[in-house]
Amino acid sequence: MSSNPSYSSIDYRVEDHILTLTLNRPDQLNAFTVDMADELEHAFRRASEDDDVRAIVVTGAGRAFCAGMDLSVGGNVFGLDETQRPTVADMHERLTDTAIQRGVRDTGGRVTLAIYDCKKPVIGAINGAAVGIGATMTLAMDIRLASEKARIGFVFGKIGVVPEACSSWFLPRIVGIQQALEWVYSGDILSAEEALAGRLVRSVHAPDDLLPAAYALARKFSVNKSPVAVAFARQMLYRNAAQPHPLEAHRIDSLAMFYTSLEDGKEGVRSFLEKRDPQYAGRASEMPDIYPWWV
Amino acid sequence: MSSNPSYSSIDYRVEDHILTLTLNRPDQLNAFTVDMADELEHAFRRASEDDDVRAIVVTGAGRAFCAGMDLSVGGNVFGLDETQRPTVADMHERLTDTAIQRGVRDTGGRVTLAIYDCKKPVIGAINGAAVGIGATMTLAMDIRLASEKARIGFVFGKIGVVPEACSSWFLPRIVGIQQALEWVYSGDILSAEEALAGRLVRSVHAPDDLLPAAYALARKFSVNKSPVAVAFARQMLYRNAAQPHPLEAHRIDSLAMFYTSLEDGKEGVRSFLEKRDPQYAGRASEMPDIYPWWV
Amino acid sequence: MSSNPSYSSIDYRVEDHILTLTLNRPDQLNAFTVDMADELEHAFRRASEDDDVRAIVVTGAGRAFCAGMDLSVGGNVFGLDETQRPTVADMHERLTDTAIQRGVRDTGGRVTLAIYDCKKPVIGAINGAAVGIGATMTLAMDIRLASEKARIGFVFGKIGVVPEACSSWFLPRIVGIQQALEWVYSGDILSAEEALAGRLVRSVHAPDDLLPAAYALARKFSVNKSPVAVAFARQMLYRNAAQPHPLEAHRIDSLAMFYTSLEDGKEGVRSFLEKRDPQYAGRASEMPDIYPWWV
Repeated sequence: MSSNPSYSSIDYRVEDHILTLTLNRPDQLNAFTVDMADELEHAFRRASEDDDVRAIVVTGAGRAFCAGMDLSVGGNVFGLDETQRPTVADMHERLTDTAIQRGVRDTGGRVTLAIYDCKKPVIGAINGAAVGIGATMTLAMDIRLASEKARIGFVFGKIGVVPEACSSWFLPRIVGIQQALEWVYSGDILSAEEALAGRLVRSVHAPDDLLPAAYALARKFSVNKSPVAVAFARQMLYRNAAQPHPLEAHRIDSLAMFYTSLEDGKEGVRSFLEKRDPQYAGRASEMPDIYPWWV
Repeated sequence: MSSNPSYSSIDYRVEDHILTLTLNRPDQLNAFTVDMADELEHAFRRASEDDDVRAIVVTGAGRAFCAGMDLSVGGNVFGLDETQRPTVADMHERLTDTAIQRGVRDTGGRVTLAIYDCKKPVIGAINGAAVGIGATMTLAMDIRLASEKARIGFVFGKIGVVPEACSSWFLPRIVGIQQALEWVYSGDILSAEEALAGRLVRSVHAPDDLLPAAYALARKFSVNKSPVAVAFARQMLYRNAAQPHPLEAHRIDSLAMFYTSLEDGKEGVRSFLEKRDPQYAGRASEMPDIYPWWV
Repeated sequence: MSSNPSYSSIDYRVEDHILTLTLNRPDQLNAFTVDMADELEHAFRRASEDDDVRAIVVTGAGRAFCAGMDLSVGGNVFGLDETQRPTVADMHERLTDTAIQRGVRDTGGRVTLAIYDCKKPVIGAINGAAVGIGATMTLAMDIRLASEKARIGFVFGKIGVVPEACSSWFLPRIVGIQQALEWVYSGDILSAEEALAGRLVRSVHAPDDLLPAAYALARKFSVNKSPVAVAFARQMLYRNAAQPHPLEAHRIDSLAMFYTSLEDGKEGVRSFLEKRDPQYAGRASEMPDIYPWWV
């Protein structure tokens, strides 16, 4: 087991190749801050390259998952530089400028884009209140499990702002456009059962069963799986599906199948025919040259 | 309450900031005509800029919602100029030419594109038969509620023509591609319960409960909500989700969050902390300069 | 009834305008080979232009649908030319080169792209095990029906390779991104009921009822339907929905409605008003000039 003491608002702990990322400000119901955004972005980018990490479970310390932005910091909760007047052109040309980076860019989006880029399966274990960014950050995770005590709300409209963290990209892909619009317009707080009926979460669990169920999935997604094939599959499902024509998928399918077949795929077929567990040599930190194919 | 007598085939009535658009040719089961298309397009574009309108409910007068194109006008029910031979290039280069506009462009699509552009939540209250364009026009609405008496059919295939009104863009987003294909291929008339099972409508109601349920949603979507934030959220959910990468969503999220935070967002957070209703100053008719971001 | 003896691993049989394509290596559980890929690609492209074929049902001979790639051929089951080192540029510039075509291109994708281009409704009747390419090939079919004995698995991760056959493009459109990721990560074998609950298949049938149900749908999709309108509708639903803006759909809607209205649409309206069956003259092999609109 390894843990990392350098984060102040999250906990990073790897055990049996599963990283548990815990939002760890329990006295503030794990309310989100710019520091937490920085740490989560760092943690997901680090885990993506850490071969000791094969799957990721995200949960909250204490009774909440994440109660949203920490409003206790006062009027400018999003840390915006109000002297700016950003334009669409700025967001295309100056996205990495410090002024845009810290004063304009949505902090939640920095986190969900890091999750999007991650090479490992990401499982959200929603143990309690997940509100605002606490709800939208889970949308970039691959699978969401909820405790019976979970309460989930896309509450942005209740405080005069908009849904963020790329949630307008992710939410319709998960629940369809009709359900997405109703939840965003209403700002309603959903029970775990409502979230399940709307297909936002894949299953609901008694509180004590939530993490065991998340770990069971994490193990299923990683034990005897090729880390290289998993990293390919994750990016293929998100990126190929968003292309205008299946031919784009075909191109990447062909390359990913070719290169995985040369290496781990041979061992996979051999082990299958020999009725034994596979021993994959590939590492997610050293993907074939064609990865990433989108740059 | 305000009403507008200048439309002949629809009724436009605003009460308590909710616009009710009623398809109003009950003796013809509200059958669709080119005039009705013109009036609906006008009404949605007008409501989009009318700050007195905060949400829109669309329903039909009498026992039908809309029985489809009015076939009583004879062979050329779509009002096409059959002397033309339009090409794909025409549709890119001459879309606003009068000849293309009136003789070629799908009338239903003019209506659904106007709904697509609208800044207000749009709720379809399907009170009875909704067939052909009567069915496809509802797909561009955000939420569909159905009376137990609703009957919905994508019947184009039964008369040798194709689904229109951008329904091939909207329907798979609502119900998935498998269900969309089956309904379009079959041309079956769906009961309200079948439409609910396929997730086309979000709920089914006794006839007398339909409009009250629609108005309850309309109020929830508008009371104590920022019209500016709602207009942003609506366009973000439709437009960002259709982009190939979540980074596009991130750019717009950042800008929309920035500008809403400067204005209504401050009042939203303050009112939340002070446990009182918000008083938003923003108006949908005067969006921040970055809106629309797509032109 | 017509049948074609020139295929060795599939059976091609047309009766009452419905083509039954049967994967026909029952002793090998219809395991997929490069030859079978060639024959399926040929069969779908041929059926697309054969006016005697109005709908297609795909099933498997014997107790399996398709047990995946035939692993008995040894290490190089995908028929790859391992001396190559293909790049992303190759897949854009040299896709039809023989070396890329036979040594790199995913065989399953050649089949699903042929299905994608097909002008006829395609119904998968999954009679038994459908594993690997046996599962992914069904995703490009419009509708999937399953026998109670069906077992479906996206098992690629279990042998160290990636999902293929454009499945990353199709699967999220059918079942949503969350369900797609879980099935691909896990490689689980799904029962028919699990596939139904996840909306992968539209219905589950007793074994003896599977083909009758598939043929009932095939007849509904073709009898008294215009082959031209059906071909348009199929391509519109897949292609328009993948565009970034509904205006793209509107352009094609307008053209397809215009040209179908000139011909079969007139007969469709007339027959409807005269309460008789329509007699359509249009042929899928002779589409209006604007088809295909995407080249």
